[in-house]
Amino acid sequence: MAVKLETAQQALLDQAPVLQVEAVSLEMSWRRVIAQEVAAASDFPPFDRSPLDGYALVADEAARAVPERPVVLTEIDSVAAGEVSQKAVQPGTACRIMTGAPIPAGATGVVRIEDTIVIDKQVQVLNGQGLDGNICRQGEEIAAGEKVIIPGSVINMGVMGMLAVLGIDRPLVYRRPRVALLATGSELVEVYEKLSPGKIRNSNSYMLSAMVREAGAQPLLLGTARDDIDEISGMITGAQDFDVCITTGGASIGDYDLIGDIFAKLGITVLFERISMKPGMPVLAGVKDGKLYIGLSGNPAAASVAFEQVVRPALLKMAGRTNWWRPVVKAQLTIPFVKCGGARRFVWSRCWQGTEGLLVEPLKLQGHGMLKSAIGANALLIVPEDSPPLAAGTWLETMLLVE
Amino acid sequence: MAVKLETAQQALLDQAPVLQVEAVSLEMSWRRVIAQEVAAASDFPPFDRSPLDGYALVADEAARAVPERPVVLTEIDSVAAGEVSQKAVQPGTACRIMTGAPIPAGATGVVRIEDTIVIDKQVQVLNGQGLDGNICRQGEEIAAGEKVIIPGSVINMGVMGMLAVLGIDRPLVYRRPRVALLATGSELVEVYEKLSPGKIRNSNSYMLSAMVREAGAQPLLLGTARDDIDEISGMITGAQDFDVCITTGGASIGDYDLIGDIFAKLGITVLFERISMKPGMPVLAGVKDGKLYIGLSGNPAAASVAFEQVVRPALLKMAGRTNWWRPVVKAQLTIPFVKCGGARRFVWSRCWQGTEGLLVEPLKLQGHGMLKSAIGANALLIVPEDSPPLAAGTWLETMLLVE
Repeated sequence: MAVKLETAQQALLDQAPVLQVEAVSLEMSWRRVIAQEVAAASDFPPFDRSPLDGYALVADEAARAVPERPVVLTEIDSVAAGEVSQKAVQPGTACRIMTGAPIPAGATGVVRIEDTIVIDKQVQVLNGQGLDGNICRQGEEIAAGEKVIIPGSVINMGVMGMLAVLGIDRPLVYRRPRVALLATGSELVEVYEKLSPGKIRNSNSYMLSAMVREAGAQPLLLGTARDDIDEISGMITGAQDFDVCITTGGASIGDYDLIGDIFAKLGITVLFERISMKPGMPVLAGVKDGKLYIGLSGNPAAASVAFEQVVRPALLKMAGRTNWWRPVVKAQLTIPFVKCGGARRFVWSRCWQGTEGLLVEPLKLQGHGMLKSAIGANALLIVPEDSPPLAAGTWLETMLLVE
Repeated sequence: MAVKLETAQQALLDQAPVLQVEAVSLEMSWRRVIAQEVAAASDFPPFDRSPLDGYALVADEAARAVPERPVVLTEIDSVAAGEVSQKAVQPGTACRIMTGAPIPAGATGVVRIEDTIVIDKQVQVLNGQGLDGNICRQGEEIAAGEKVIIPGSVINMGVMGMLAVLGIDRPLVYRRPRVALLATGSELVEVYEKLSPGKIRNSNSYMLSAMVREAGAQPLLLGTARDDIDEISGMITGAQDFDVCITTGGASIGDYDLIGDIFAKLGITVLFERISMKPGMPVLAGVKDGKLYIGLSGNPAAASVAFEQVVRPALLKMAGRTNWWRPVVKAQLTIPFVKCGGARRFVWSRCWQGTEGLLVEPLKLQGHGMLKSAIGANALLIVPEDSPPLAAGTWLETMLLVE
């Protein structure tokens, strides 16, 4: 009995534990998921600072300056970035100041160096407009106590820069899910082996290892197993330290479709056996001792769509992410799509901006040929359940393969 | 003199060398750039194979079968995936066959197991329609000699699976660009140091290290240097093995803006000094001995936009990529944007699907506060040169921060 896709997604999400927290060096934290709420311990800037090179002065007295009637001030000090002037600016005086340096006591504005003429420590201010705006105020960019990072955010360039600003050199992140990948099928040989009659290479484990990495998790390649209950179950129980175990092959009906028997033998509780979608209907999902077990089809088109639709959201939850879904946009078919009807269908596609809006072109090759399509895919087109054949120009929802 | 953005981009692209090629294990090749053209050495499937569990037979003689008048055949053998049957199927006979197994000699079709009743090796075929379609033909997914992967492709799940299918376990990839990052400014301390008066932490190197990784390159953090020609140039010349050296700070005019002097001292040929765009106008770019030297602003908003616009395309070229540009979509402003006029402006933004089309919301915080915006940014809004203030609802080009 096939379950609805949303039911399958929720069943796995319900069973997926959020993993432990660990500290990593800031430098190595890119793409990790932050596990701590970060509030600024102090203001940023930590002091009033100059955003430009010029002279700090009393803004009011220089306000009337124009090129024809400069206001003339006496330079009393010079302050570089990283220094603090020990002198206070008073009416009639100015302090040379560099970008990033603290505003000296008494100063209420900064004139740009380009708007001055300086001869023998006498500073002619040529333009007095808006000088009080040339101060970057303490706390104006980040206020002390402000919550700037929430748990579940992926560490991108903004998060990483912000952690550095705040002095967090070993952020807490969620442990990455470890995903064991086992390809089953007596026809399979390893990628480095020579083909003999009747054999093909294990490609699913490699395809899925890329998808696992893209989801921020760590693949653990267990290799291949023959269609043998003891061999497959021995390789699963012998594998250490995985959070999710994914098998490919043997998940549909047939004499050699053994994954159901293996679940029973290992005491894995079945969550669902098939999902109402194409491709990717046969998906045997189970749970035991907080670990997820997923039996995917041996067909790469089916395995990749099922991974994308039901495994990826669960991995994102385990990794501490709070948004588990790809963005969905509306795009117009560039060519007719006739392989419709029945269950909802997902098609690896290419999406881009046209003159009128987004366009999407389905890349329809199936089986292992599907890998050719997936090389250029940046989207997964969604053909609704019981859809009639679709003409070019039809608007359809399309999942973008971005975070 | 500020150059046009496109001029600056082209100047760096012209100087950026495509890096050497190296072999990596397939398992570790995710996100690397493939450096070899890959043609299939043989057909895939390598033999006619069954896409389902059933019976291989002579399709013509079973074509008339219906549930009321089954065609009855004698089972002569059984072939599992990975095996080859030694018996030929002749009229009146059938061979049990599993998904993925080679079609036996003589068979021209396969009937699904669900469409048969089998008693004592007598196979009743209940439905004879389209049985010749149930064979996945040798070479139908990938033909021998077909060029399936072109150099410059990023190794995604499709490429990785395809390399496995073809038995390429150590693909040739381009070496990743090594990017040295040096933050200059006497006000800077390291992220793990305590702040003292007038000091702030080096955040630019971390922000840029994330951007470097996102571009598929390797960051090399050199740390911070005071505003001192000898110190900065010593740290640059002492750094080993970089392809690109990026400094932050000291790139605009002012007493302590030293990068121009350092370029002169080190004999670096200047390509351009400023770019007509906001933020990110001050960008000092040079080349010496095939290495690129880029002096970015110390302001993170300016440094991040300049990296995105001119450094990233050059890194992608060096890394062997053949497309150096982000996708650009059209999206509607959700709020007015008034900070217009003058040079083309780039604004970190959030883009998503609305009911009528794509929407884009500029995240306008600048300075280090810009990092707050960049945490949630997935796009860079483009405000054209000399634009008037823009009303909510205006359609604008928007770069998506995806590959």
